[in-house]
Amino acid sequence: MIPTITAFERSPDRGKGLARDMRVRWTLEELGQAYEVRQLSFSDMKQPEHLALHPFGQIPTYEEGDLALFESGAIVLHLAERHSGLLPTDANARMRAIAWMFAALNTVEPPIVERSMAWILEREETWYVQRLTMLDERVRRRLGELSRRLGDADWLDGAFSAGDLLMATVLLRLQSSGIVDEFPNLAAFVARATARPAYQRAFEAQLAVFLQAQSAEVSSPAP
Amino acid sequence: MIPTITAFERSPDRGKGLARDMRVRWTLEELGQAYEVRQLSFSDMKQPEHLALHPFGQIPTYEEGDLALFESGAIVLHLAERHSGLLPTDANARMRAIAWMFAALNTVEPPIVERSMAWILEREETWYVQRLTMLDERVRRRLGELSRRLGDADWLDGAFSAGDLLMATVLLRLQSSGIVDEFPNLAAFVARATARPAYQRAFEAQLAVFLQAQSAEVSSPAP
Repeated sequence: MIPTITAFERSPDRGKGLARDMRVRWTLEELGQAYEVRQLSFSDMKQPEHLALHPFGQIPTYEEGDLALFESGAIVLHLAERHSGLLPTDANARMRAIAWMFAALNTVEPPIVERSMAWILEREETWYVQRLTMLDERVRRRLGELSRRLGDADWLDGAFSAGDLLMATVLLRLQSSGIVDEFPNLAAFVARATARPAYQRAFEAQLAVFLQAQSAEVSSPAP
Repeated sequence: MIPTITAFERSPDRGKGLARDMRVRWTLEELGQAYEVRQLSFSDMKQPEHLALHPFGQIPTYEEGDLALFESGAIVLHLAERHSGLLPTDANARMRAIAWMFAALNTVEPPIVERSMAWILEREETWYVQRLTMLDERVRRRLGELSRRLGDADWLDGAFSAGDLLMATVLLRLQSSGIVDEFPNLAAFVARATARPAYQRAFEAQLAVFLQAQSAEVSSPAP
């Protein structure tokens, strides 16, 4: 059965692949699983039909037969458990890869999202520059810890796993800041991850959606 | 084999049970598993020995034979997978409970932590009051969505699960703000969760550590 995920009809990042459907698309591509995408407008996301699937009115969701899931981390874990390739078979190594999934989403991502939210909501405020300096320092400290742990390894713990995949998507959110480049081994980690054919296929698929939305807008301009 | 977790020797919340070891203690109590605790000072947490266990120099960690884990979410998941009681046996219901674990840690907790961090780092800044209003609104919106989904159910999806446990610990971090009380069903959810004997035992255990540290300090004052 081919699962259906949801994604932005018109991603706010303009096709840069930073929306959370990218994590699920990339996972599906790594695992060689076909999928369908239901595109949602911002208005669709707040309708009862979507809220029944996603209590917080976000994307992505995942539907496959009787199963409906939300939260990109849970969807990636579900897929990685069902198909081989993104979690080690050894029980302890499997749990350590899952620990990196949680680390990406609960320890590394929050200060990065806080930094992005400041740009979105506070960049016109008098305090923005002063806060940004503070937020950058907090992100830098966490990336320093991550960089020290990665050392000169290719991936966070053995072979490429769902933990590396999520960590790469989180670090990509810092792309425009230049902060990742201060840590050459993390920049190389991201480059290695995004060079994977599965990442490339997922990236092209989400970009195509954005370009389609953009061209539809050009061909039918507002009255 | 009895696992060992790490916790603060002297919790910064002064024994209120808001540190992340509480999630693991509570889980172990729900599952009826004995455990040992290695207490760490703030200085211990940044030493190479602890950083080998936890790349970000935080608590809790979990050691059991050959397995060493960090990230409270991963530790709770590991325990819930190994012992019955905190995850449904039905495969789909199990994944939905895991989705609530991720929702607690990646969707509900971040704006709550951002609010706490503002109090810790920015409360002397001129912008603090204005930002706090904004942060409260963001937390309120998310709690509104959670409240709507919970409705008049006891727990988020069927029987009490690891997802409810993590969500309750996240909501407890808002205790002093009064925001949870604006949503009577969420306040009742937290009350129901914290009334569980396993929560009570875990709470007492972490409080005892704090009281011990405090009394040690009183009996040997700084020179």
